[in-house]
Amino acid sequence: MAEENKVSLHGFFASPYVRRVELALKFKGIPYQYVEEDLKNKSSLLLKYNPVHKKVPVLVHNGKPIVESLVILEYIDETWKNGPRFLPEDPYKRAQIRFWASFVHQQVFENMVLILKTDGEAQEKAVKEVSEKLSLLEEGIKSIFAEGVPIINQKNVGLLDIVIVSTFGSYKAQEEVLGLKLIDPEKTSPLLFSRLKALLELPVVKGALPPHEKVVGALKFMRQNALNSASV
Amino acid sequence: MAEENKVSLHGFFASPYVRRVELALKFKGIPYQYVEEDLKNKSSLLLKYNPVHKKVPVLVHNGKPIVESLVILEYIDETWKNGPRFLPEDPYKRAQIRFWASFVHQQVFENMVLILKTDGEAQEKAVKEVSEKLSLLEEGIKSIFAEGVPIINQKNVGLLDIVIVSTFGSYKAQEEVLGLKLIDPEKTSPLLFSRLKALLELPVVKGALPPHEKVVGALKFMRQNALNSASV
Repeated sequence: MAEENKVSLHGFFASPYVRRVELALKFKGIPYQYVEEDLKNKSSLLLKYNPVHKKVPVLVHNGKPIVESLVILEYIDETWKNGPRFLPEDPYKRAQIRFWASFVHQQVFENMVLILKTDGEAQEKAVKEVSEKLSLLEEGIKSIFAEGVPIINQKNVGLLDIVIVSTFGSYKAQEEVLGLKLIDPEKTSPLLFSRLKALLELPVVKGALPPHEKVVGALKFMRQNALNSASV
Repeated sequence: MAEENKVSLHGFFASPYVRRVELALKFKGIPYQYVEEDLKNKSSLLLKYNPVHKKVPVLVHNGKPIVESLVILEYIDETWKNGPRFLPEDPYKRAQIRFWASFVHQQVFENMVLILKTDGEAQEKAVKEVSEKLSLLEEGIKSIFAEGVPIINQKNVGLLDIVIVSTFGSYKAQEEVLGLKLIDPEKTSPLLFSRLKALLELPVVKGALPPHEKVVGALKFMRQNALNSASV
């Protein structure tokens, strides 16, 4: 690795935000050093690199930190032109992709976290929210790929694909822990589901997602923690 | 206006999100039709163009809608290459600008809205939050302009400038309604304040910000509404 391309990533194995940065680096074929953070005892480097949010992921490129997963994805795409281009050339398509990536990032994922951390009525409300957001996302995917969906491969994978597979890639673990169906391939999410299935078949994705049992363990731990502190 | 460049903007006069799109269009010299929305009785066009959030601003370019103010700003910059470029060429600087623009958009402005809509302890908490976020922003501005701050003019104004002036441009009206100082030019925000002052001197900005009294009226109305519904 040349001195001028020293790349490291501060992350946490169960974070979908970190996962999307890892996937982006792997799709581009960029060698990097991975630093797993203990989120209860963050490294001084992490605090130095991300003094504002003190959160992972942080990408460090030649000593310069970049934070916020969607900002990092665009940085990677603009810095390394090799491999797949994560955003299309056309400004309107770029705007659509940016909009829906941020929609999944903020609106869908936040409610998925709520489902994990709540029970009873609060959880029912969050389940309904996710289902409504997924219906909207389905329309979004339809509008983006109005000209037909290309067969996904390692060379044409895009920013929204990376956000989709990092957010929903562990859906089986999520459904096992929650005992409910998040993504309904029959009703709300046929396009999302078929796209996700195709993405999960890519070797890069297979190599980057944490094993099912490890995710189940992490999700159970987070759920128990949240429910315990809510009932105190 | 050529048929291939029909631009309209659905907005609301008191929205800083709309203001930043207007400023971007004016800085680029793009002619557009402005459609003021009645937010209690939204037009069918607005609902058609933004079915996901049903919110302003919506930019419509040759019949195609773009939503979310930061997505719109990048779209404008990528579509019309004339006039100032809102983002620099260097990917690292672009990432910094995107990070801080989204920080002001989400973290600072949301707490400013909370200050407006609360009283007592909740308001004190929001004031403290804004002050802390402004200290962080000050460090951000320092790091972005480490090589020296260029004198701002109509040709070198950038995305972060547009976000800053749309968010803080009516600070005098905000301070009058709230009876407190939001931006402290002596303590937390010397760089932000001097940049804001310079931006407020630009003819485009002077022509785009709504008059002081109109903003005071709108803010008083919003505050009263929020406090009334909270006390019911």
